[in-house]
Amino acid sequence: MFKKDVYIERRNRLREKMSGGLVLLPGNVDAPMNYPDNTYHFRQDSTFLYFFGINKPGLFGVIDVDEGTDMLFGNDVDIDDIIWMGPQPTLREQAAQVGVKCTDSFNEVYAYVNKALWQGRRVHFVPPYRANNRLLLKELLGIHTAKLPDYVSLELIKHVVDMRSVKDQYEIAEIEKACATGYEMHVTAMKMAKEGESEQKIAGIIEGIALGGGGGVSFPVILSQHGETLHNHDHSLKLKKGMLMLTDAGAETGMGYASDFTRTVPVGGKFTQKQKDIYEIVLAANNESTAMVKPGIRYLDVHLNAARVITSGLKDLGLIKGDVDEAVRHGAHALFMPHGLGHMMGLDVHDMEDYGQVYVGYDDETRPMERLGAAGLRLGRRLQEGFVLTNEPGIYFIPALIEKWKKDYINTQYINFDKVMEYADFGGIRLEDDLLVTAEGARILGKRLPITPDEVEETMRG
Amino acid sequence: MFKKDVYIERRNRLREKMSGGLVLLPGNVDAPMNYPDNTYHFRQDSTFLYFFGINKPGLFGVIDVDEGTDMLFGNDVDIDDIIWMGPQPTLREQAAQVGVKCTDSFNEVYAYVNKALWQGRRVHFVPPYRANNRLLLKELLGIHTAKLPDYVSLELIKHVVDMRSVKDQYEIAEIEKACATGYEMHVTAMKMAKEGESEQKIAGIIEGIALGGGGGVSFPVILSQHGETLHNHDHSLKLKKGMLMLTDAGAETGMGYASDFTRTVPVGGKFTQKQKDIYEIVLAANNESTAMVKPGIRYLDVHLNAARVITSGLKDLGLIKGDVDEAVRHGAHALFMPHGLGHMMGLDVHDMEDYGQVYVGYDDETRPMERLGAAGLRLGRRLQEGFVLTNEPGIYFIPALIEKWKKDYINTQYINFDKVMEYADFGGIRLEDDLLVTAEGARILGKRLPITPDEVEETMRG
Repeated sequence: MFKKDVYIERRNRLREKMSGGLVLLPGNVDAPMNYPDNTYHFRQDSTFLYFFGINKPGLFGVIDVDEGTDMLFGNDVDIDDIIWMGPQPTLREQAAQVGVKCTDSFNEVYAYVNKALWQGRRVHFVPPYRANNRLLLKELLGIHTAKLPDYVSLELIKHVVDMRSVKDQYEIAEIEKACATGYEMHVTAMKMAKEGESEQKIAGIIEGIALGGGGGVSFPVILSQHGETLHNHDHSLKLKKGMLMLTDAGAETGMGYASDFTRTVPVGGKFTQKQKDIYEIVLAANNESTAMVKPGIRYLDVHLNAARVITSGLKDLGLIKGDVDEAVRHGAHALFMPHGLGHMMGLDVHDMEDYGQVYVGYDDETRPMERLGAAGLRLGRRLQEGFVLTNEPGIYFIPALIEKWKKDYINTQYINFDKVMEYADFGGIRLEDDLLVTAEGARILGKRLPITPDEVEETMRG
Repeated sequence: MFKKDVYIERRNRLREKMSGGLVLLPGNVDAPMNYPDNTYHFRQDSTFLYFFGINKPGLFGVIDVDEGTDMLFGNDVDIDDIIWMGPQPTLREQAAQVGVKCTDSFNEVYAYVNKALWQGRRVHFVPPYRANNRLLLKELLGIHTAKLPDYVSLELIKHVVDMRSVKDQYEIAEIEKACATGYEMHVTAMKMAKEGESEQKIAGIIEGIALGGGGGVSFPVILSQHGETLHNHDHSLKLKKGMLMLTDAGAETGMGYASDFTRTVPVGGKFTQKQKDIYEIVLAANNESTAMVKPGIRYLDVHLNAARVITSGLKDLGLIKGDVDEAVRHGAHALFMPHGLGHMMGLDVHDMEDYGQVYVGYDDETRPMERLGAAGLRLGRRLQEGFVLTNEPGIYFIPALIEKWKKDYINTQYINFDKVMEYADFGGIRLEDDLLVTAEGARILGKRLPITPDEVEETMRG
């Protein structure tokens, strides 16, 4: 946990920004797997963590803007809990560690909020993404669960996005810790990528490394020889020589900060020339993007530049034809990279995605583009010093998508489908680093994972 | 997945038992961690798995008792889903694999159930343990979420408990698979239990082994030098020579069947005499319990016998005094073993605990006992051939509990508190195997983990 002044300062800063009212920050509870007492690893709500920093289930935080006070609601444990879970600090003790003086038992939150509503005060909350918190807000506020999205506070979202987008030194240190665990996960996966090994086993082992780091994975591990399936959570295959293994995985620290890396390696340790040709294009897109990142640039423009690098590279290989800029304007690259270049990262791997992507990745100046090849971009707006984001270009050969474009005559003037069909069983390549926007440019967070073909082959040799 | 006749037969058997109406079996959906699209490992609902066998989110099964039909409601994927998740079989194809002919899109379940309600037909469901299924049933049936427990079908619970309590050959084969993964988890933990290693790292690595096996852990790993905390999920300590490391962990197969083992080992690989003295008592309780298990015996009586073994052993060491049978009748052993001897195991590690423990572990003949030392027993009733259960005696020294008994003068005639205080920092020992009740007795499932002090020390040497 960071020192308590950090949390006091954050809550005060939010209070200064808000016009008034009460900010409700329900924490998470344990989520049941297959019966009430058999629960998943506890994951605290990120907004709660940011302002209250207590990584325990069953808490409710309130920031009272008008009164200038902070409250924490929750219950202390009894002797039965101690037998099963061990001695626990009291809520009052935990609250003191994050600079909160007022605490009360959980059920008192109903009376507290009720009184505020009765006084006609504005109540602010961000979109609840867990069903139990939707039910809780319904009970607290008397709003039908299906109608809650209409009552979300845009004012609160915008101020919190402003605050959380710029990472402070403590947050950057945490992200670096998550990156160190992520490094170990990926190098382990590379070394295990031998003919006959099971995808499931490697995916399990690297998730185990994440858990051993104290937090767990920052998102479900993607590890597959079918890298063309962007979020492939099927790990049922055995590794086969000649295939590419794409691993997109990261860790969380105990305090919830994420890392998120992707590497693509040849099963058995040696790239074929055909694989290397595509790989080098993706690598160039990755390197050029890092070089472009600096305060003031729109990430949409970095994305479009990566699209140009990819289009140009694929043109050299004969898969794309015609003018590169024109092809990118028509979204021809989207057949090969149907996703965006990256997203914000912090307490969530897709930072603040629960608030709505448009509030995080875009602003009044930069609006989301519906156009082919940019619609999937999660982050488009101008970058600021302190932003942390992913840089993850890729090239994929997705049979169902190729089939669809062919059938619907999409961008036939730019795509050489005959040539593309030669890559039908190629799979996909993605290369992803995490970047911190610095005063002058960008810094790759953590020790950079092996990324050139030589570095990768060297690592895989042992 | 088992062959489709298994599922057809199960649904038909349930239909024969039920007096009429409609059985609603909502499957689970993906559970969000920190935003809607970042989800935990999918865990299907066990009742749904038992009758419909499809391990995918977003399905709803209906067994129509009156009409003799089965229905599956769910949605097929579109091209966007294929890009992100890969090609998927259609619902119709999946349904055919488990012998279900009627399928429809998810939203049609509302009309289907509504019609049945309008016709005055009885609708059966088991207690929903996830908030989203509580919300779903509320919408389907018009019952307030808080009132749903009043409308649960006891008839359905009792018939399903009858069916699921007796494991068939396919289920036993799955449980043996889970046991094989559990074996690997525990032996790995034993070998890692060296001075200076972190609990968190070992816990992570063995969870990784479970995930590599295709299912994940059957419950959150308990791994601690504070074994006296029964469900200790704090893994923040480094291993210290002289301490005992208690590991209670198991795996699930891809189809949801569980294993559940506990072993307690000396950090560094060598038991002290003091540790061995307590260990041998727990081991004797474990072995005697396995020897007693057979069809027709009440598990409550096996539990009480284990309590006697423990009480007698602790009397020999001078921690308990007086008559052993008297002491057990007064629950004196509950200071040292404040939990029950075991529970049913199958598709859930605490099998069917979502229905309510009393319906699973007890029956009209054997009712739960409130008395000290038996209240925590999850399984008390007479055993039948085909039951699978855990045998997990333990001895713990729980400072807060010792303090409480002393202060409240509980069982002072049986407890030698001065002697007990010599064990204040001992920790706890639990030894757990999984048993199948056979025609003549019991069989330990899986290859038995090292359990004698010699076997344990031998394994830890490498």
